[in-house]
Amino acid sequence: MRPERIGIVGGRGRMGRWFANLFKRAGYQVEISDLGTPLSNQDLARQCPVVFLAVPMERFEEVVIQVGPLMPPEAGLIDLCSLKARQVAVMLRETTCQVVGAHPLFGPGENSIVGQRVALCPARGNGWFNWFKDFLDTQGAETVVISPEEHDQLMAVIQVLNHFILLALGEVINRQGLDPQRLVNLATPSFIRQLNILSRLADQDPHLYAAIQFDNPAGDQIREAFARAVSKLKEIAQERREEEFVQLFTEVQTLGQKIRKAK
Amino acid sequence: MRPERIGIVGGRGRMGRWFANLFKRAGYQVEISDLGTPLSNQDLARQCPVVFLAVPMERFEEVVIQVGPLMPPEAGLIDLCSLKARQVAVMLRETTCQVVGAHPLFGPGENSIVGQRVALCPARGNGWFNWFKDFLDTQGAETVVISPEEHDQLMAVIQVLNHFILLALGEVINRQGLDPQRLVNLATPSFIRQLNILSRLADQDPHLYAAIQFDNPAGDQIREAFARAVSKLKEIAQERREEEFVQLFTEVQTLGQKIRKAK
Repeated sequence: MRPERIGIVGGRGRMGRWFANLFKRAGYQVEISDLGTPLSNQDLARQCPVVFLAVPMERFEEVVIQVGPLMPPEAGLIDLCSLKARQVAVMLRETTCQVVGAHPLFGPGENSIVGQRVALCPARGNGWFNWFKDFLDTQGAETVVISPEEHDQLMAVIQVLNHFILLALGEVINRQGLDPQRLVNLATPSFIRQLNILSRLADQDPHLYAAIQFDNPAGDQIREAFARAVSKLKEIAQERREEEFVQLFTEVQTLGQKIRKAK
Repeated sequence: MRPERIGIVGGRGRMGRWFANLFKRAGYQVEISDLGTPLSNQDLARQCPVVFLAVPMERFEEVVIQVGPLMPPEAGLIDLCSLKARQVAVMLRETTCQVVGAHPLFGPGENSIVGQRVALCPARGNGWFNWFKDFLDTQGAETVVISPEEHDQLMAVIQVLNHFILLALGEVINRQGLDPQRLVNLATPSFIRQLNILSRLADQDPHLYAAIQFDNPAGDQIREAFARAVSKLKEIAQERREEEFVQLFTEVQTLGQKIRKAK
């Protein structure tokens, strides 16, 4: 199973271009649609046996409504959104074709797919799912098959909470008026790593990050849980309750050991 | 200026041992005192031209009261505590000798001093300050001269806030009952780095981390500022205020660019 041509809706966006290049380098013919392209989204749906949706999350549903009904049952529709539960449900609702939910767990700033993770949610049929998974595995990516619901729940920590923490840290540094140069000069090995993670945000799209923050079904819950942990820890520190602090610290150390073993 | 022998009070502790090895490898004679050693703290104060204090912060003041008055004016007293304002003040109060505050900005888990940062606060006299700074520079460390007050203020972010954030993140992961293996499998490049930082806590001493959290004069203020940022961001996300989110995100991106340039 090798598609004659691959369609990418949103092929001029950063992630669309990234995957278009990846497929082209692997010898595939790639057709794209975007604002002002010769081919429309509907053209791709009619002409390509497999179509990728690389569109902003806020435009996702209208695009699926537009292209989904045009796709024949043997075709494949694969999205690249950062969330999966609602997105897969919308694709299943608007199509009779094969459906795969995919979430490349990296941004378009990465140079290579080797070692990068891609979450895959098989939703209807397995032909295009198997083709895409084999393609990614062959390219050196690490694919993880997961249900849309578990995906979104884990992303509530991996993306929502992680971004939330980085933004809160950045906001404090900005509000305190601290000199970034001085922070770098005196950083510990741990904090220099934290600053490096924070500085990676400079490459990212604020609107995508807003969608990840706002649209994850578990977002409010995880932010609330973090605020509770902050408030608990703040109290422990403010009241110098050393025994409780050491207890909590030790539990996090145990988690740290499990993370090390998990690699 | 090269001391005949170097004394290390707390020479059996992890940081004491680390520096004892560093000095020995550089050809110095090192004498240590600790619980049950042949030499007492007072012996070191009387016999060694330069004495390092590598003792837990909660025992620091009593040790300075014990050894400080025994040291002749030409001797040097250098501490290795993670905080500097109170520590330097106590050493100045209890001695007439030369005094240097030092904070190695790394833990005893690091293999080499090359590229590691050490904050130095010259406090009284410059002979021993110059000797120690030259020694560190020659060994490949990056020394940063700073006032005790600025040091503690920057450490409120670099250590207090950084550790605080990692503990709050670990606490949330633990309370949510998430599988660390699954988090690693689906981690983005950003979050895998965050998990790596968190897992470094496994090597650290909970009591030192409690002291860093509890004793920094700016600790309460910085934890409060972080809780305010969390609460502000939580509200923005909960109410899906995209414009404000993008504004804050962009400000953090600007900070990220400054951090990159600062390296």
